[in-house]
Amino acid sequence: VKFEVTILGCGSATPTITRKPTAQVVNVREHYFLFDCGEGTQVELRRNNIKFQRINQKFIRHLHGDHFSGLLGVISSIHLLGRTTPLQVFGPPGLEDIVLLQLKLSHSYLSYALEFVALEFDGSQIIYENEQLSISRLPLKHSVPCNGFLLREKPKQKNILKEKLTAYQIPIAAISSIKDGGDFTTEDGRTIPNKELTKERAKSYSYAFCSDTAYTEHLIPLLKDVDVLYHESTFLEAMRDRAKATKHSTAKDAAEIASKAGVKQLVLGHYSARYKTTEEFLEEALPIFENTILGHEGKVIRLY
Amino acid sequence: VKFEVTILGCGSATPTITRKPTAQVVNVREHYFLFDCGEGTQVELRRNNIKFQRINQKFIRHLHGDHFSGLLGVISSIHLLGRTTPLQVFGPPGLEDIVLLQLKLSHSYLSYALEFVALEFDGSQIIYENEQLSISRLPLKHSVPCNGFLLREKPKQKNILKEKLTAYQIPIAAISSIKDGGDFTTEDGRTIPNKELTKERAKSYSYAFCSDTAYTEHLIPLLKDVDVLYHESTFLEAMRDRAKATKHSTAKDAAEIASKAGVKQLVLGHYSARYKTTEEFLEEALPIFENTILGHEGKVIRLY
Repeated sequence: VKFEVTILGCGSATPTITRKPTAQVVNVREHYFLFDCGEGTQVELRRNNIKFQRINQKFIRHLHGDHFSGLLGVISSIHLLGRTTPLQVFGPPGLEDIVLLQLKLSHSYLSYALEFVALEFDGSQIIYENEQLSISRLPLKHSVPCNGFLLREKPKQKNILKEKLTAYQIPIAAISSIKDGGDFTTEDGRTIPNKELTKERAKSYSYAFCSDTAYTEHLIPLLKDVDVLYHESTFLEAMRDRAKATKHSTAKDAAEIASKAGVKQLVLGHYSARYKTTEEFLEEALPIFENTILGHEGKVIRLY
Repeated sequence: VKFEVTILGCGSATPTITRKPTAQVVNVREHYFLFDCGEGTQVELRRNNIKFQRINQKFIRHLHGDHFSGLLGVISSIHLLGRTTPLQVFGPPGLEDIVLLQLKLSHSYLSYALEFVALEFDGSQIIYENEQLSISRLPLKHSVPCNGFLLREKPKQKNILKEKLTAYQIPIAAISSIKDGGDFTTEDGRTIPNKELTKERAKSYSYAFCSDTAYTEHLIPLLKDVDVLYHESTFLEAMRDRAKATKHSTAKDAAEIASKAGVKQLVLGHYSARYKTTEEFLEEALPIFENTILGHEGKVIRLY
């Protein structure tokens, strides 16, 4: 049982041999989500030994080519590999048109159902949820409309102390409600408070993915207490003018947001191809936010 | 001065870590042409140290995603790198719609002129020429309409023998016509035949690119005496049924075409991802056509 993020790519618009376009896989207890799908994502999935077919939801943030160019490749390959499970793609209005036009002109049909969910760009809202977690979009500040994503685990069920099961002869039918925090009433009418029956509830974790965006304080309340924040840092402060012109962040910007939102850890990424090494990004962020790490291709961030 | 083909990718529909989607760069005397542009082509151009900006013509054979998915990436990256030289893209009708829709929805403008030339699929015809060469399309036999390409150098100018320049006092104004094969008339009215003035004309070379296609004898007269033929071999004979169903060739098919057309050299490629190694492709082709070599990523085929 785990919650981990695998960075497939954290380059920016022009990829290089080592710096791949943006894509990440988030695995929460064997539910796999793909955030962005830059050119070459299918090969990076292979390189990181992540099975294509396990991914049932993909989230695309905006329609700059570096964030969705790999989508058709993945859609086609999983078809060729015999997929039958439906695939949901969450992305900006227009993404569906692009994909369907390509499929039509290439005379392709798919062996599985492909469902598009068009995302708006106004504020934050839950766009997906299952029993364990929810995913919300976050409003970013970029040259074109762009969403970030916030994945939050729901409160977890409590574990019942084994000795109490026998001591109070708890029937199976009552277990689920106790795990959800309910008290238990014995056959002879006594109410046993939940906290006597259970261990403390395991912590629920959260992960936020914010790229591409300029520094924007609108994010701060939305990122409150998030465990891990991936925030783009396309530039260093020395190129503040370029960051401003292209509506991207510097490493310092990312650290300021992390600090003001009180997140637990900051991951930097989306480095401009002009930087051959990334150590300076860390040097710039650390004085402002101590628990900062550098994202890189193949990096796995384990929340638990 | 050279004529060489660099194979960026010779995998088929599902790329792997080592097998890249189809793309080739042909360099004829520093004119660069890109044949196909599979996902990840821009990274493979970098890996092979080929400058993006030197390519002014791209040729796309058909609209299966594995042959054009990298196009938007290249188009965007050369814009970001400041291109101003126009780019011509030759491809099936519909390719322009796909690219323009993506550019529109991503709010992109380009710093250079992008010109599309829609290619039909009926027979062979010259689609591009400059002073040195012509490029024709070739009719292939595939599950969707698909072209191959044939690049032929034009007859080269002859080199004038230096001692004749002084012996006959040939003026500069007369040189070009002699190089083109003309005779020379001296001031006193004598006609000097061209063959006395010049070395033998240097050979003009040709290269054909045929993928994706089933075995089709329509190609044979069109490929007559071609110097190098790249012919797909997606399968081995053991999977003849699969080759037939998907309208692809086996290594034996490719060798038969090479042999019947009398080409000088055959290059195999477009191997199905199911084959981990490619030696068997060579073993199957060699008994039928001796001068066969295996294409692979990064392979450079030098015609001169």
